[in-house]
Amino acid sequence: MPDVAGFWAVVPAGGAGTRLWPLSRAGHPKFLLDLTGSGRTLLQATVDRLAPLTVDRVVVVTGAAHAEAVRGQLPELDAGRVLAEPSPRDSMAAIGLAAAVVERSDPDAVIGSFAADHVIPDAAAFHTAVREAVEVARDGHLVTLGVEPTHPATGFGYIRAGERMDGFPTARHAVEFVEKPDAERATAYVASGEYRWNAGMFVVRASVLLDLLGRWHPELAAGLREVAADPSRLDAVWPHLTKIAIDHAVAEPAAAAGHVVVVPAPFGWDDVGDFASLASLLPATDGLTVLGSADDVTVVGGSGLVVTSGGRRVALVGLDDVVVVDTPDAVLVTTRARAQDVKRVVDALKDSGRTDLT
Amino acid sequence: MPDVAGFWAVVPAGGAGTRLWPLSRAGHPKFLLDLTGSGRTLLQATVDRLAPLTVDRVVVVTGAAHAEAVRGQLPELDAGRVLAEPSPRDSMAAIGLAAAVVERSDPDAVIGSFAADHVIPDAAAFHTAVREAVEVARDGHLVTLGVEPTHPATGFGYIRAGERMDGFPTARHAVEFVEKPDAERATAYVASGEYRWNAGMFVVRASVLLDLLGRWHPELAAGLREVAADPSRLDAVWPHLTKIAIDHAVAEPAAAAGHVVVVPAPFGWDDVGDFASLASLLPATDGLTVLGSADDVTVVGGSGLVVTSGGRRVALVGLDDVVVVDTPDAVLVTTRARAQDVKRVVDALKDSGRTDLT
Repeated sequence: MPDVAGFWAVVPAGGAGTRLWPLSRAGHPKFLLDLTGSGRTLLQATVDRLAPLTVDRVVVVTGAAHAEAVRGQLPELDAGRVLAEPSPRDSMAAIGLAAAVVERSDPDAVIGSFAADHVIPDAAAFHTAVREAVEVARDGHLVTLGVEPTHPATGFGYIRAGERMDGFPTARHAVEFVEKPDAERATAYVASGEYRWNAGMFVVRASVLLDLLGRWHPELAAGLREVAADPSRLDAVWPHLTKIAIDHAVAEPAAAAGHVVVVPAPFGWDDVGDFASLASLLPATDGLTVLGSADDVTVVGGSGLVVTSGGRRVALVGLDDVVVVDTPDAVLVTTRARAQDVKRVVDALKDSGRTDLT
Repeated sequence: MPDVAGFWAVVPAGGAGTRLWPLSRAGHPKFLLDLTGSGRTLLQATVDRLAPLTVDRVVVVTGAAHAEAVRGQLPELDAGRVLAEPSPRDSMAAIGLAAAVVERSDPDAVIGSFAADHVIPDAAAFHTAVREAVEVARDGHLVTLGVEPTHPATGFGYIRAGERMDGFPTARHAVEFVEKPDAERATAYVASGEYRWNAGMFVVRASVLLDLLGRWHPELAAGLREVAADPSRLDAVWPHLTKIAIDHAVAEPAAAAGHVVVVPAPFGWDDVGDFASLASLLPATDGLTVLGSADDVTVVGGSGLVVTSGGRRVALVGLDDVVVVDTPDAVLVTTRARAQDVKRVVDALKDSGRTDLT
């Protein structure tokens, strides 16, 4: 199939991935790592996955500290297609900056935003969904890909889908976005069949996104367009931009105003949020998953995830569902069940002044 | 108190301590390590503990591979007092060689054998018991210090004590030695009050030990005395000596013949057999014991033993009664309950040809 005319992919490459410490660090965060043993980093895999949709029109937005590493991992990208944020100002500023830059070179462009650190094994199903989303977006809608929930997750927001849209294979009107629910509500959402995970995959005309933003946050929209018109204004304007997530800034109010469409995403999706999530993505043998060299691992009764890096022996005796992550300067021992709490190690290290380890 | 005239301490320094891998290795076994954070290795602490009984008359028997390290750790010892075994031939040959060497220079000597890798916190109580044992041994008995059981251990042999001996404060005739029991029998032994742990602490005239050995293993006794008379014969004689433990070779048959006396050992004793044992010897804070630098450990919910070595961060999240041992080339993760199975890691490494890690 040909690529999608007028479609631009925006890849926000941010987030420290602190729940994946000590693999993920501030200096080499999750998206720069090959966490699936595929030989490609999450960022590279994200761009690879987009290639059949758009080879030439990919924009990555990342922190200034990582721009060089991003360019190094994506040599096929024109250097100007890697936008460097002077400081973190949340997802609306990041995606909005890319939208404004794209809008200037292609006023009718449809953009799709796809985080650099998510995993989608079924690329073909992803392409089909995005192609439909782009067609819907051409009509002026803000489209979100709604992931079919596999379990009542409490770590994601949900989108409630409503009536089918005429003229498209699967698209539905979005009724509302809801925040991360508690376990009881999540169970009810999943049981209802009406709710889907909000994976942050938005497809929309660049101009529509910025115009919607202009309704609720006019200064933010104006600031982003000012920088796109004159990149030399970046450092002056950026620090004054409102720090807000794209969900709160645009998606939620736009849904309430009837402007949002959900295209079902009938494919596996994982944000690799923690080591339990990572373990579920990788093949296991007798309950044991090894990322790195399996030759470096000795197990005498035990299961879970072992991550090796560089020749040290890791021995596991008699522990089930454990997570052991070995790196040159730090080793983590936890369980799948407590994987979410790994970020508290990073907090503790920061509190004790050991940012060199974070 | 003065030292004990005519008393020689024999310190067998052997055993790989495979259940303490990866701290204990073939190249630097348990007795060469400071496992209590005291600043002294187990070997040094053993010799320190003996000093009030005999400063000048200490003999260490160790494998040829470790003789240099032993001499390095005990610079106060005359080099000739460190006997190097050409190969491991079990405890009877090791202690018997020392006995024969001591017998030649001091025919009336009483020797006491005390393993180099055991921990006895109450040195004063130890001294009192040994002093009594030496006086009993001067009368020609084979004396063993019987440790008061603190729990129905299945990992030690037991000694059954009988009638009190006239003329000594606490000594009793030994009825029999029994092998490591199962849990049911161990419980019965402890409940009876008649049984004590056999900690391998024997006190006996050197000549009596060798004469008793001569009854049941005449060639072994003769071989040891031959080497003591002419050390140049060591390499020729040693490989032909019977490999047998002192318990089987002498203690058990001598007890059956009525020649063994038990002196109660009313002090804490630990053979530091595994990491569970090691953890119990060290102070804990909120359930966590750290051997090494506590500054290198970050815990977010969790308890057990963490051993650090050299600056790497060890982070523990949400695991109780865990054992994490970090060394430069290997990290072990297990539990207190499974600590005995650590030796199976060493077996597996040997099986896979990785003796460099054992």
